[in-house]
Order: sequence, then C-alpha cells, then structure tokens
Amino acid sequence: MSQFAEDALTHDGFLGGAVTISQPRSGYRAATDPVWLAASCTAGAGEAVLELGCGAGTAMVCLAHRTRAKVTGVEVQSAYAALARRNIAANGVVGEVVEGDVGQLPPHLRARSFDHVIFNPPYFAPTSVAADDEGRDVAHREATPLAVWMDTALRRLRPKGTLTIIHRTENLDRILTELQGRAGSVQVRPLAARAGRMADRVLVRAIKTGRAPLRLLAPAVVHDGAEHLADRPDFSSLAEGILRRGEALRWEV
Amino acid sequence: MSQFAEDALTHDGFLGGAVTISQPRSGYRAATDPVWLAASCTAGAGEAVLELGCGAGTAMVCLAHRTRAKVTGVEVQSAYAALARRNIAANGVVGEVVEGDVGQLPPHLRARSFDHVIFNPPYFAPTSVAADDEGRDVAHREATPLAVWMDTALRRLRPKGTLTIIHRTENLDRILTELQGRAGSVQVRPLAARAGRMADRVLVRAIKTGRAPLRLLAPAVVHDGAEHLADRPDFSSLAEGILRRGEALRWEV
Repeated sequence: MSQFAEDALTHDGFLGGAVTISQPRSGYRAATDPVWLAASCTAGAGEAVLELGCGAGTAMVCLAHRTRAKVTGVEVQSAYAALARRNIAANGVVGEVVEGDVGQLPPHLRARSFDHVIFNPPYFAPTSVAADDEGRDVAHREATPLAVWMDTALRRLRPKGTLTIIHRTENLDRILTELQGRAGSVQVRPLAARAGRMADRVLVRAIKTGRAPLRLLAPAVVHDGAEHLADRPDFSSLAEGILRRGEALRWEV
Repeated sequence: MSQFAEDALTHDGFLGGAVTISQPRSGYRAATDPVWLAASCTAGAGEAVLELGCGAGTAMVCLAHRTRAKVTGVEVQSAYAALARRNIAANGVVGEVVEGDVGQLPPHLRARSFDHVIFNPPYFAPTSVAADDEGRDVAHREATPLAVWMDTALRRLRPKGTLTIIHRTENLDRILTELQGRAGSVQVRPLAARAGRMADRVLVRAIKTGRAPLRLLAPAVVHDGAEHLADRPDFSSLAEGILRRGEALRWEV
C-alpha cells in the first residue's frame, strides 16, 4: 500500500487545534504520546531534528510548530511517509520525510548528524500477537529491536546533541543499558496517569557527550484526581499546557 | 582496628526506639537509608536474609525485628562486624555476622543460598575524595565495584528469591543493567525528599527467575510540604510509618 485513500483518513486537531494531522481512520493513530515527545525535545529554531519512525508525523510536526526547528522524519511504510509529508506541508512547518528502515538508514542520512533525535518506538515485542491492521502492526510491533533504534539515534547525533524517547516503562532497563557509555546527563521523567500511580510510560532524555549524573525526576501526572469520576476531561494543568497549549516539558538544568 | 572503644560509641534508637544500634560516634553512621532498606525487604518469619556490607547491622536488625527473619551480615571491617554481632544480640533477633569481602565471600557462604539479599552499597565512586575517617571511607567509597555487589547478591539468591537495594539514583542505570537477564519482576521505587522533587535515592527490588515487566512506582515522599519551614520534624505519614513505627514499604503485586 503506497497511499491511503482520502476516505480512509481523518483530520485531527492537536495542541488545541493549532496543528491538524491527517491519519488513517484505522491503523496506527497518534494519541498523546507523540505530543509528550514533541514537548520534551529542547530544540531551538533552525536546529535539525531527526525523528525515527515518524508515522504520520504527529510528533515532529508538533515539535516544529512549537520550536521552528527543521525536522527530518524516517518512516519505513510509504503510505505513512506520504502522510507525514502532507502533514508537514499542511501545517506550514519546515521538514522532509525519508522513506527508510531505522535499522538501515539510506546513505545520505547516515552522512548527516542532527542536533536532536526523537523517537517513539514500537511498544510491543515481536512475539506479541499481531494486530488486525498491517499498518498498525508494523507501527506497534518491534520488528527492529530497541537496541537498533537506540544505536541509530546515537550515531546520528552530534556531540552535545540530545536524544529523547518516549516508551513503555517496562523497557526502561533496556534504554538505560543502551545509553551507558554512549551518552550521559540522562534524565528520566515518569509519566503517570494519576498521582500515586505507577508510571506506565517514561520519557528519557540523554545528551551525547553529556557528563551529568543520571536523574530521576518527579512524575509528570496526566490526570487530576484519584480516578476518572465523570464523563469529562480531567487533565492536570501540566497536561493541559502540553496537550492543549503546545507548551514544552521542562527538564532539570 | 579490630574493636571500637566503648567511649567511641553512641547508642541510637531506630523504629521509634524499638531497636537500639550501637555505632561509632564518628565514622560511618546509619541514617535513614538502612531503615528504608529494611522496610522494603519482603522476608517472612524464619526466612534467610543476607545483607552485603552490613556495617553495624542497622538494616538487618531492623528487618529481623519486624519480620523475625534470620539474618546473615557480611562485613569487611572487623570492628563493624563486631558491632553488628553486638547489635544482633542486644536487640534479641536471630542472626550472625561473617567477616569478609563482598567480592570474595568465604567458601561456607558461597555454598549457601538465601531467600532474600539486601544491600546499601557505598555511594561514591573510588575516584571521589577520601573521607577523613578510615571506617567511613571504606563504607562510603566504592572499593568493590557495584557490578560485583550485584553479582554476589544474584549468585547467593535462591530461585524466586528477592534482591533489594537502596542506592543513589545516579546508579540506577548500572543497577538495571546488571539485573538484565539475571532477574526479573524489577520494581523501582524512587525516594524523593518532597513531592515534586527529583528522587535522590532509589529502592530497587528484583526477583530471581521473576518474569513480570519492569515497573516504576510512584515516589515514596519523605517529607511533607514544599520545604522545611520550622525546626521540627515534618516526615510524611508514609515515612513516619516506616521510620518510627517499623512498618513495611509495599511493592506492587
């Protein structure tokens, strides 16, 4: 499949409607994780950002919208790559999309280095049950091992460049292991649905050639209250700022 | 130095006075970390617990007091080993102390396996500045690499046995790396001075042959309020329970 049919697409608002992302009605659909990822990258205007496995481009478009960074997405599925190009153009940000495999980047990308690399790799191990939808399946399952994503990201970073990843907490050990000896100044920001709950996601940021000790920050709490009581949104003010107003998530300095 | 002079010792109450620990006035002195460690080990009555680097025995005595587990401490400094024996006897718990190096346990210990292993390894890398006091220096500096502590602990655990460690957060990556492939069901409990602050300590628990995914729990918060406002204790109710009433710290099941 090289292109989605128009009627297979929805057009969804992000950052309080400031960004619109076209994405398949069924298949891999962006929820809030790409927005948290975008909020966590400390790119400045004009800096070069690489997103590995960009899908329809939600994270990099949100990031470019906030920061005016120049984004480059890599996406293995051509239909998603085409969508990501369309989403870049439709949102008036500066970027490009390269069709390619994270485990085997095209030579012209391997020759470049970036100020920042961001990624939101597949969440489930290759042994997990396949999804019904082929596109969602590739996006969700870990065909390329996490270690390869980490290695590709680290190789493409310039010295002092930042790597930012959002992932399921259960892979935190693998993430930290891959970073050891190759990056430093690691900060881990747990993402917890509610205060006092386990964090089911983590944001991890590292600096290539960074030397500060590893830090474990206070959780970013997504929802207020102990449980969801009524049929209305109950985002925390932090989450409102990030998801609705396009604010940045702060790291320790 | 094989023994501390009597007048070099203080006798300090822990767990609200339920436990008294004799320890050197100057040198390595237990603060709250050994108590958090003791609270985090899920030993049952009669189970065998090994503490690596037990010092004067604060953690294992607090643990044995709460659980009636049988504790075995390993301590390289003979004066501290003697103190630990004295503290076991003085508090009426069941235990023994073996003088030895964590990196090279005596053969009779290497022949045994334990239901639980706990440790609170030295906090500073060997390159850090030496402390004035020789005893404190050995206790604080990392003469034996963390990887050796982890390896010794894992080797001495029976299948399904638990490993529990308290350490500076900056070593979380090394801890998780050493656990990979050798233990599972890892849970990380950040220990934060106050709500919203970075965690400067972590408690990590793993199960040998455990297969549950890694979990990152909500921080255990030590003090109430945003900062210390008056000259009085401001422990959180969780910390009060653990430090004053000898309660257990819960893990996810």
